[in-house]
Amino acid sequence: MIGLKVRKDLEQFFIEDIGTSDLSSEFLFPIDEQAEAVFIAKESGVFCGKEVIEIGFQMLDEASRIEVNITDGDVVQEGDVIASVKGNIRAILTGERVILNMIQRMSGVATMTARAIELLDDTSIRICDTRKTTPGLRMYEKYAVRCGGGVNHRITLDGGVMLKDNHIAQFGSIERAVSHVRSRLGHMTKIEVETSTEEEVLEAVKVQADVIMFDNCSPKEVEAYTKLVPEPLISEASGGITLDNLASFRKTGVNMISLGCLTHSVQSLDISLRMKGEL
Amino acid sequence: MIGLKVRKDLEQFFIEDIGTSDLSSEFLFPIDEQAEAVFIAKESGVFCGKEVIEIGFQMLDEASRIEVNITDGDVVQEGDVIASVKGNIRAILTGERVILNMIQRMSGVATMTARAIELLDDTSIRICDTRKTTPGLRMYEKYAVRCGGGVNHRITLDGGVMLKDNHIAQFGSIERAVSHVRSRLGHMTKIEVETSTEEEVLEAVKVQADVIMFDNCSPKEVEAYTKLVPEPLISEASGGITLDNLASFRKTGVNMISLGCLTHSVQSLDISLRMKGEL
Amino acid sequence: MIGLKVRKDLEQFFIEDIGTSDLSSEFLFPIDEQAEAVFIAKESGVFCGKEVIEIGFQMLDEASRIEVNITDGDVVQEGDVIASVKGNIRAILTGERVILNMIQRMSGVATMTARAIELLDDTSIRICDTRKTTPGLRMYEKYAVRCGGGVNHRITLDGGVMLKDNHIAQFGSIERAVSHVRSRLGHMTKIEVETSTEEEVLEAVKVQADVIMFDNCSPKEVEAYTKLVPEPLISEASGGITLDNLASFRKTGVNMISLGCLTHSVQSLDISLRMKGEL
Amino acid sequence: MIGLKVRKDLEQFFIEDIGTSDLSSEFLFPIDEQAEAVFIAKESGVFCGKEVIEIGFQMLDEASRIEVNITDGDVVQEGDVIASVKGNIRAILTGERVILNMIQRMSGVATMTARAIELLDDTSIRICDTRKTTPGLRMYEKYAVRCGGGVNHRITLDGGVMLKDNHIAQFGSIERAVSHVRSRLGHMTKIEVETSTEEEVLEAVKVQADVIMFDNCSPKEVEAYTKLVPEPLISEASGGITLDNLASFRKTGVNMISLGCLTHSVQSLDISLRMKGEL
Amino acid sequence: MIGLKVRKDLEQFFIEDIGTSDLSSEFLFPIDEQAEAVFIAKESGVFCGKEVIEIGFQMLDEASRIEVNITDGDVVQEGDVIASVKGNIRAILTGERVILNMIQRMSGVATMTARAIELLDDTSIRICDTRKTTPGLRMYEKYAVRCGGGVNHRITLDGGVMLKDNHIAQFGSIERAVSHVRSRLGHMTKIEVETSTEEEVLEAVKVQADVIMFDNCSPKEVEAYTKLVPEPLISEASGGITLDNLASFRKTGVNMISLGCLTHSVQSLDISLRMKGEL
Amino acid sequence: MIGLKVRKDLEQFFIEDIGTSDLSSEFLFPIDEQAEAVFIAKESGVFCGKEVIEIGFQMLDEASRIEVNITDGDVVQEGDVIASVKGNIRAILTGERVILNMIQRMSGVATMTARAIELLDDTSIRICDTRKTTPGLRMYEKYAVRCGGGVNHRITLDGGVMLKDNHIAQFGSIERAVSHVRSRLGHMTKIEVETSTEEEVLEAVKVQADVIMFDNCSPKEVEAYTKLVPEPLISEASGGITLDNLASFRKTGVNMISLGCLTHSVQSLDISLRMKGEL
Repeated sequence: MIGLKVRKDLEQFFIEDIGTSDLSSEFLFPIDEQAEAVFIAKESGVFCGKEVIEIGFQMLDEASRIEVNITDGDVVQEGDVIASVKGNIRAILTGERVILNMIQRMSGVATMTARAIELLDDTSIRICDTRKTTPGLRMYEKYAVRCGGGVNHRITLDGGVMLKDNHIAQFGSIERAVSHVRSRLGHMTKIEVETSTEEEVLEAVKVQADVIMFDNCSPKEVEAYTKLVPEPLISEASGGITLDNLASFRKTGVNMISLGCLTHSVQSLDISLRMKGEL
Repeated sequence: MIGLKVRKDLEQFFIEDIGTSDLSSEFLFPIDEQAEAVFIAKESGVFCGKEVIEIGFQMLDEASRIEVNITDGDVVQEGDVIASVKGNIRAILTGERVILNMIQRMSGVATMTARAIELLDDTSIRICDTRKTTPGLRMYEKYAVRCGGGVNHRITLDGGVMLKDNHIAQFGSIERAVSHVRSRLGHMTKIEVETSTEEEVLEAVKVQADVIMFDNCSPKEVEAYTKLVPEPLISEASGGITLDNLASFRKTGVNMISLGCLTHSVQSLDISLRMKGEL
Repeated sequence: MIGLKVRKDLEQFFIEDIGTSDLSSEFLFPIDEQAEAVFIAKESGVFCGKEVIEIGFQMLDEASRIEVNITDGDVVQEGDVIASVKGNIRAILTGERVILNMIQRMSGVATMTARAIELLDDTSIRICDTRKTTPGLRMYEKYAVRCGGGVNHRITLDGGVMLKDNHIAQFGSIERAVSHVRSRLGHMTKIEVETSTEEEVLEAVKVQADVIMFDNCSPKEVEAYTKLVPEPLISEASGGITLDNLASFRKTGVNMISLGCLTHSVQSLDISLRMKGEL
Repeated sequence: MIGLKVRKDLEQFFIEDIGTSDLSSEFLFPIDEQAEAVFIAKESGVFCGKEVIEIGFQMLDEASRIEVNITDGDVVQEGDVIASVKGNIRAILTGERVILNMIQRMSGVATMTARAIELLDDTSIRICDTRKTTPGLRMYEKYAVRCGGGVNHRITLDGGVMLKDNHIAQFGSIERAVSHVRSRLGHMTKIEVETSTEEEVLEAVKVQADVIMFDNCSPKEVEAYTKLVPEPLISEASGGITLDNLASFRKTGVNMISLGCLTHSVQSLDISLRMKGEL
Repeated sequence: MIGLKVRKDLEQFFIEDIGTSDLSSEFLFPIDEQAEAVFIAKESGVFCGKEVIEIGFQMLDEASRIEVNITDGDVVQEGDVIASVKGNIRAILTGERVILNMIQRMSGVATMTARAIELLDDTSIRICDTRKTTPGLRMYEKYAVRCGGGVNHRITLDGGVMLKDNHIAQFGSIERAVSHVRSRLGHMTKIEVETSTEEEVLEAVKVQADVIMFDNCSPKEVEAYTKLVPEPLISEASGGITLDNLASFRKTGVNMISLGCLTHSVQSLDISLRMKGEL
Repeated sequence: MIGLKVRKDLEQFFIEDIGTSDLSSEFLFPIDEQAEAVFIAKESGVFCGKEVIEIGFQMLDEASRIEVNITDGDVVQEGDVIASVKGNIRAILTGERVILNMIQRMSGVATMTARAIELLDDTSIRICDTRKTTPGLRMYEKYAVRCGGGVNHRITLDGGVMLKDNHIAQFGSIERAVSHVRSRLGHMTKIEVETSTEEEVLEAVKVQADVIMFDNCSPKEVEAYTKLVPEPLISEASGGITLDNLASFRKTGVNMISLGCLTHSVQSLDISLRMKGEL
């Protein structure tokens, strides 16, 4: 994460939520009234979003004091106090919703990633994300996957080449496509090839694709195809894998499993803000 | 939705996804190669996102021809062809992911809203959303709720006043808070008050709050409190209501039920893009 | 007002005014030279713009000390010292014009609003603004109206529904239009209907429009129509009302009078910046 | 004016006005309904804003046909049809307010400039604007001044040097200040010096300031000081001059009169949009 | 390159150059006057920037007809006509400078890259760029390097890991640093290690860094170190290599040579725009 | 330079370089680890970019302490310590590249300007820049020219009128073009005319163009034409002048020489960042 991008994004998000004024707070409270509040976990999970809390309130009230008690990636239990903030009451009430929306989603992604690793229960296989992230939130969701114990697939289209069925169908063959790309590609960028038959896997191996992905394959197929992929080439299972069927890929020997659901169908982690009774 | 804001947002989202170039497409295909593709529903649900498809591809290839066969809010079945696009192959492959990420999410929200209405099975109660939307996507998610048959709660903090427990605790009493706000509030803006006891409901009624919300109340409480709210005041149940327990609020007589899950914990609707075999 | 939006807007306004450098200051003064200046009211009126002064100079010189002696909404007299700033002389001279342009306009709006209330001299009628604000400055002008003692009409097109003559002419009838909108509209959003004949007023009352506006009506008509509007429906006179004829609407009984001139034809309040003789 | 900047600014202004949707239009009219409307002058004046109308509607409805019958700078009479637009009814109704806000203000500036020239009634003296423009609208207001027959003073702080009383007081003397600046200033940039006594005028002449401004001087003083300024140096009267006292500066011989009121205290020109009865 | 990003960037660049108006063109030519112009190479080199010409003029005059006769990467000779544009004369004259500034620089980068390949005269070694690009122009310069026959090093800091001397000095050892990073890094991202001694090279080989860079090493050292790097690991020479000493690295056997000068010290290719004599 | 624009631009440049995260630093170092580093000149030249260093690191680590030992425009020698920074190690390593890219380029421009003045060796002639600056970096490059001892030509198209051969060819004659422009141009803006024959020079003199430019003329022609230009008109030689032939214009008597190469073909000044061995 980059703090200055967090600041830039939160600016946009706060304005989207507020419009021109939080009328409720503006009309109720004097401009200088102070208050104190805490963020409390209402269910257990993996927390993620420390910088969002810190930067968010600082943007709304430069003088506010914010203490986040835990670190991104830490497990929280129901009732845990995640953070406290003292400062202008208008700033606290105005900022509450956007900050919660962000940290609940980020913590939801981190929690789901950790849950996937737990369900898979095979540390020889690593869990990664996809490009199926929420538009506008890629930085946050990729980071949350890392905090949950997963690793990132490519982050942008210029950070890696992936030749999918559509590319290959249009171009002709895996072999020709990989050679064609390789002649123009820099040495820091990997090539991944999507395959779904043994023939395709072998063709990808022959042309030494850096990563060979098995698309929408059964655990059995994944296990069989993985055996065809020699080191240091990397194998990846992808497509149609969710928390429900993830465990069936245990011990397939594949190197990576990528999960779109980590970011496209997230359950927010329940966190709430409570004002402190007295100041 | 506003087309020019869709355009502005997609600009940001495409750049977030692409970086500086879709190297896979750039390296494989000549700059002018044409192709054709279709969007296909892979499960049934309520579609939402026509403008995103149209504007999205138009931004990447001004000459592309896009036909969306259905309208926002229409039900699609597995296998239905939602839209087709003919144009530059690089544009199609580069734009695919972002456009899918948007329409899958919007359709997910619309589908979940329609499902909620179905589960509630009581047309005298209306379903609405909250401000628990994805940061950056409020316009799209609020619109998707409307397409799914729901209505919107306030869209921004300056579009309505809501006095929550935190506000009231800090300020003193419902009655004083409402009077205080009312003296400064314009005539086009409503005041909603959050309550959780009979006493609070009665206080809100006394001061003629436009909307009285019952926070985290059981169906029984909602039913009892609703009876205390005379027309034209509006009653709303909120907090802790999900698709799992929604049906239990049937026939409570309440006017509105607001659901945070419609936007904070969405399951994307599965839609895919397939290149046409031959051109 | 939201401080972070003020900051974002001032960034744009300063760059618009400065270009790449305030050559006059850069060429005359050493980069670290300090100075002190005061803002002085050159005529009496209602001041508005405290945050603009504070945030503006802080953006140009983080170390500057700014003291604004009064509060938004306070009345100033000719010669009053509104604020003082100590800091980098280049920052003071460079920032002067944009900050004055903002606070003179905001104070002009606040002053005109207060003047309208005074001229109307009937506290049972409230003065409100319209959407005829300066493009880019809605937040500031709506806020200034509040500081002058007025209230705001809807702030954005998604914050309220107004069915004008054009809408109704195209759609058919007031009754059908209101019913049509109501079936899709959330419970936090009001519907206003523009009318100009007794028949239209009665139709709007029949369909229980939340607000009924009398467009370009004489004081007599306003008085007559208002009697047709039962509580809790709200009546509003609008169109063609200026400070010159406002007093003629006194005692018409109408709830609201909206004035476009408050924001589209403002006289700036005269305020100047004076350097202090010695440091 | 630059069309691409108009487009960029209108994007911001439309979003400011609309929020996420023009609910009134969205709920009333089918997405494809067409309509026709005309802009009509409701009072006489100098029109300005052709590009705003053309670009504005084109942004909201690419297929709309817009015809502006007159040219920026043309005089309109009450009742004149300025422009017509045929296209999507939602686009017309949604765009109306922002476009009117822009062209009414621009036409107001142009009209006021033309009125000033008429009142002064001395073509040997030219009327110019100042930097007292509306923040965010400098391009439009400077252009409107040109359309009204005036000329522009410097447009940005890097487009000219002006040494005001504050600069000179802090720096020491006119002579030293001008020499100091001149040694670092490019040959395309002029130096103006603010003066208010005969002594200062003479000092400015001695050091050959390109433009010598008489600040807050009476017509008599302006006449006297102007005689001290030899060609090709240029004399300018500024400060405290409004449409009320402008005529008293006739025949003073001064080259330029700058008027802050042209942009800081504008009366909008009344223009309205009317839907055509039938399609 | 992404067309929509080109458009967004050119918007910024045109406004930077123009300010509020190209006064010279606005004051000289009627708003509709047409003209024709051609871009002519004034020296030989590799052209790059087709999209900039096409999008640039289209932004300034939607109706203009632009024909670029050659393709990015083509060699031009002095006097070659690169492109022609017919359209509004104001648009042509206003856009000329920014478009030339862009294509001269891009062509300069492409030409320098081609020259480097020619000077090296060893096709077994590939030439690549660095992150020493002009701030704001990375997309254009990375693309121009590809057009000149080179390949790209990592494009952003999240597109590859490079452990430089500073990283390693602070962290402890190459081996520990690589292991540490590898445990958290996704499978699509490579690790490069900077080395400058045989010992460091061997350590990087031992830990199987994907790319091993020899920093500021002589051709002899590069040759020796390269022999220590087994396939599929990749060797790269970097630091202090310019067009003057590049040939001395011929036949060193290294895989890659990266050149900062390709983007940080570019000589623009001389291209000019000429109006056609008659219309 | 304006600090708030530096901040805004650096935000864009950092995000361009980083993407979503500096993975190398994030994976290696704890979030709070501190370090210290110095900027060292690796060759002699004129330094420029103090504010970029100060603002840049402050943006990445608000708590960092930055000391720049010298001032913009100072000469540095190889080995000089330009600045030191203490703070978060991630911030230092992440920010290094962008800050170096900026200050190396700015110092390159300043150094080249100083070198030009030295080569010309005739203080009666001033060196200025052109509009051939790097798109996006005009503020920085114009400032760097000033720091190197040069002066600026017009900064934007609305900051001065220049009538080039293309303008004049299309319009008819120098005399008519200048008169036409002058009638609409403000008194703070100069008119420059491009000439290349004695006849054109005389025509420009006759019409009293403020600046008369000799385009692509030999030193002899420049000397001859200059004699035709009486005070206070200013003469300028431009076109085809580089550091290689600049000295041949010594003693031509011309007032100004403008050099495009100062900004379009810059050699970066070599500066590097070194971490301090121990903390």
